[in-house]
Amino acid sequence: MDTRPPGRTCVALAGRAVDPRVGEAMRTLAQHLLGKGYTVRVVADEALALEGAGVHAVPEPDLALDAGLIVAIGGDGTMLHAARMAAMADVPVLGINRGRLGFLADVGPEQMLQSLDDALGGRCQAERRMLLAAQVLADGRPIEALALNDVVVAKRETGRMVDVRTWVNGDYVNTHVGDGFIIATPTGSTAYALSCGGPIVHPSLDAVVLVPVCPHTLSDRPIVVPAGSVVEIELADRFESRAQVVCDGIVLCDLDPGVRLRIERAKVSATLLHPPGHDYYRILRSKLHWGRGTRDGQPPGA
Amino acid sequence: MDTRPPGRTCVALAGRAVDPRVGEAMRTLAQHLLGKGYTVRVVADEALALEGAGVHAVPEPDLALDAGLIVAIGGDGTMLHAARMAAMADVPVLGINRGRLGFLADVGPEQMLQSLDDALGGRCQAERRMLLAAQVLADGRPIEALALNDVVVAKRETGRMVDVRTWVNGDYVNTHVGDGFIIATPTGSTAYALSCGGPIVHPSLDAVVLVPVCPHTLSDRPIVVPAGSVVEIELADRFESRAQVVCDGIVLCDLDPGVRLRIERAKVSATLLHPPGHDYYRILRSKLHWGRGTRDGQPPGA
Amino acid sequence: MDTRPPGRTCVALAGRAVDPRVGEAMRTLAQHLLGKGYTVRVVADEALALEGAGVHAVPEPDLALDAGLIVAIGGDGTMLHAARMAAMADVPVLGINRGRLGFLADVGPEQMLQSLDDALGGRCQAERRMLLAAQVLADGRPIEALALNDVVVAKRETGRMVDVRTWVNGDYVNTHVGDGFIIATPTGSTAYALSCGGPIVHPSLDAVVLVPVCPHTLSDRPIVVPAGSVVEIELADRFESRAQVVCDGIVLCDLDPGVRLRIERAKVSATLLHPPGHDYYRILRSKLHWGRGTRDGQPPGA
Amino acid sequence: MDTRPPGRTCVALAGRAVDPRVGEAMRTLAQHLLGKGYTVRVVADEALALEGAGVHAVPEPDLALDAGLIVAIGGDGTMLHAARMAAMADVPVLGINRGRLGFLADVGPEQMLQSLDDALGGRCQAERRMLLAAQVLADGRPIEALALNDVVVAKRETGRMVDVRTWVNGDYVNTHVGDGFIIATPTGSTAYALSCGGPIVHPSLDAVVLVPVCPHTLSDRPIVVPAGSVVEIELADRFESRAQVVCDGIVLCDLDPGVRLRIERAKVSATLLHPPGHDYYRILRSKLHWGRGTRDGQPPGA
Repeated sequence: MDTRPPGRTCVALAGRAVDPRVGEAMRTLAQHLLGKGYTVRVVADEALALEGAGVHAVPEPDLALDAGLIVAIGGDGTMLHAARMAAMADVPVLGINRGRLGFLADVGPEQMLQSLDDALGGRCQAERRMLLAAQVLADGRPIEALALNDVVVAKRETGRMVDVRTWVNGDYVNTHVGDGFIIATPTGSTAYALSCGGPIVHPSLDAVVLVPVCPHTLSDRPIVVPAGSVVEIELADRFESRAQVVCDGIVLCDLDPGVRLRIERAKVSATLLHPPGHDYYRILRSKLHWGRGTRDGQPPGA
Repeated sequence: MDTRPPGRTCVALAGRAVDPRVGEAMRTLAQHLLGKGYTVRVVADEALALEGAGVHAVPEPDLALDAGLIVAIGGDGTMLHAARMAAMADVPVLGINRGRLGFLADVGPEQMLQSLDDALGGRCQAERRMLLAAQVLADGRPIEALALNDVVVAKRETGRMVDVRTWVNGDYVNTHVGDGFIIATPTGSTAYALSCGGPIVHPSLDAVVLVPVCPHTLSDRPIVVPAGSVVEIELADRFESRAQVVCDGIVLCDLDPGVRLRIERAKVSATLLHPPGHDYYRILRSKLHWGRGTRDGQPPGA
Repeated sequence: MDTRPPGRTCVALAGRAVDPRVGEAMRTLAQHLLGKGYTVRVVADEALALEGAGVHAVPEPDLALDAGLIVAIGGDGTMLHAARMAAMADVPVLGINRGRLGFLADVGPEQMLQSLDDALGGRCQAERRMLLAAQVLADGRPIEALALNDVVVAKRETGRMVDVRTWVNGDYVNTHVGDGFIIATPTGSTAYALSCGGPIVHPSLDAVVLVPVCPHTLSDRPIVVPAGSVVEIELADRFESRAQVVCDGIVLCDLDPGVRLRIERAKVSATLLHPPGHDYYRILRSKLHWGRGTRDGQPPGA
Repeated sequence: MDTRPPGRTCVALAGRAVDPRVGEAMRTLAQHLLGKGYTVRVVADEALALEGAGVHAVPEPDLALDAGLIVAIGGDGTMLHAARMAAMADVPVLGINRGRLGFLADVGPEQMLQSLDDALGGRCQAERRMLLAAQVLADGRPIEALALNDVVVAKRETGRMVDVRTWVNGDYVNTHVGDGFIIATPTGSTAYALSCGGPIVHPSLDAVVLVPVCPHTLSDRPIVVPAGSVVEIELADRFESRAQVVCDGIVLCDLDPGVRLRIERAKVSATLLHPPGHDYYRILRSKLHWGRGTRDGQPPGA
């Protein structure tokens, strides 16, 4: 796939510039881009920390608009936020970490200029990642959000459990009693869902995972369903039970008993750019410390 | 062990009498006890719902005081509350469920009068269960609580993680990143801790279980340590991370970063009375649906 | 989908007729079918136990050939065997259990005649299930087998571990140290793979699950990949380590270190017939005892 | 505790001397010991590889006899074997790894001479570790073995399940259907049992863990019981089901259906010597890769 920005000469930088390491990386990237004749755009709030770097400050909703590329620098929060913006504007995103390999930010600081050139030159691997669209009807008015990782129904009161009723394509699945419930994309399968016992889902598989959080019933296990499924969720009315809907770690709204949360594949998807030679399983092995023994005591040859 | 109340002629009833099923059971128990010459005591709040039953209304702190027996009727909340009161007053407790076998309330409604007579006649099996004492020093002032099941450090903000640092007997154990952390007694090992991947700990074992909740690190597994251990916990200072200390499902206080939570075996313990023939493993098998196949597809003889 | 056998008037019965309950069901089914003008076919070995029932004895390879329907009666072994034969002959299969609901055999003995009529009348729901094809090259000669549930590489020496190297579509995944490795279809996801920590995969999802068995590395978690993937496996050369390849519970061959096992989607697939009103999640709830509480001790309203 | 060998001037070395790294370490240790006036003893089989090192070759059963110390060099198999011999002879054991920290061999090659001097000088921390004694009555003749890690009942036929019936102190616990069953000491809790979902049990806790291997029933969870418990196990008679009893990874015997396996705390225990400053939790953190993030995707401040 040719991922070259089609004649677009504007690159957007996303990151928390007040973090000195991030700010410095943004300055370096900006200088490199300006030297090549690109214009560089950052969100107004971050522009202050980049004074003198020659970047354009824009309101956040305009950051990705008509840009040829978004470069996101930082941790997962930054990446998730940038990827959702990029998906809505249909702009590819390149993720740069701050020294530790990330599932989404797989370019290290030392390769960032090379990878930027690869991205601008169309030499990166482009990968489509699905997003979820969550919708709650509150007082007849829809509240909506996108998620690249996951939509979570989380209990709000510590010490209490919630009863989460689920339907897939209109078929009742179960009433999950516990701490909450996760609907994760393949991207999100290596995030919170993994800590809750969910499987790793390869990004090329068109699927979502339903993962109960600390379920009361021990046989209440993760279920993987086609990505085209409509998942619906309601909180059962239980004494003092309250829950929230959380998309990519950001609270969307409370979920009152009897109100329906509807989750389906978003119409938009994100395009991640990976440096040439990208290998998903290598990242898995690195992030999960595979290939180094972790337990002891068996006689592997004495 | 002779579990006969030594010359004490007062029996305390604990339960939410406003629940019709519980109220009716309390009336039946009261009538039975009064007929045998016992006095019957209930908490003032519940006495209203038992008008005309001939019971004495007392303030809650006095309920167990000098009683020969506490009979608790209801679900786990009632049982836990009654058992903590019973432990403090050193009075045995008999647990009556509302039709579904419980780990703590193992007497069914149909056997309750027989079991009550067994308890009064010293024919029940008495079992000691340890409690935990949790203490937080806030502004130099200690906040304390007892727990029969567990002390939980739970994240307060949905969508965030907490970093929980743990020490056992002064030795640093780990920084557990995730949804929280559980310190459970053997009694609590079949409660919330079990849903979080903890083992079942036999009540006769003098131990506590440390269970991380949805840990970020997949090898962060439950640890069982001697009951005499002092467990200390601090929240690390992480952006927007907040947590609460929850004892037996009841919020004790917020846990601010840097404040030390100290958990050790309580000086008091609870005495549970079980009907003759009590069998812990039978309750396990029943509650966990053991002995009924749950998966399919292997050729067990075709 | 019209699942009526297109003008085929022969029905095959599969089951271990020597089992009295199975034999009796086969006689009842045969009588019903003969009365409606169908011819009935069984494998020669089973025909002895059905003497006088008016059935045709055929060699096993011919059982499904040109039949309009296979009716399988019995447990999972019978179902798996019948489904593989049915897949190869492209004949639909109806599964009848012996009194306990199965994932594959979802017709109870009391509904079997009604469901048989539904199957013959085209009123059943037909569902396609993928199979896996496993191939080992031993001395240049391929050894092959089909599996509806799973292909398992299992250690052969108790007390030893095996090192299983895996590739997906040519990309190296990991060296899994432990008791073995499972490649399961969605059908097999509720069989052995589930006991090893794998997720439930909905049958409509085109995927396979890779599940390490008792992995040494605690972060070595199940991975779900597209069904079109080619999975390759080799045993690493470790002291005294030996393994076998097992398809649907039947040993295919030894797997020597350095020999490549190749697993991919089979060219054929099985057509399962379900009675009208079939509901996958209802079967899940029933088989996994969902909807009945399993742990205790949290205060659900006292 | 004074762990100085009381006037014993003989030190035993255990290890597979044919492994060049191990052989070289054994030579270095022998030279060091001889220089200090100790006599040095090795098993006859290993002595060949140590020719000229000035060591005494003895039959294996005599290795530990009246020695002041056993130094074990190598992996877990060597350590387990040496620790069982040391326990029977009541001689302390010092474990030296080959470069990678082990739970039992916590002295690295570079500290081995210093630690040896610490051991001889009584400056090591001595720790008692319980062993299990397994006994099977076959044809009235007892077959017995000791285990420092675990006694495992393992299925013998790949592709089959075994039904393992368990009793603790005479009380029936459950029939565990699956791949097998583990009875582990605290020492063994970080070995095979950990891979099967068992908890970490602190070595100072007097307990054993019962862990089902890949159980068919998803709620069939590990149970921790007092170390003084008598655990009994029988194989149920299931079609083609066969099992073996394996102690510390070494096959003891077949377990036929109906034959009783009895496991209890051994009369002897092992004394492990740790270098000053030994910290169990530090070893846990190192072996289990704690303290390094393993998943991604949540917004930790981003």
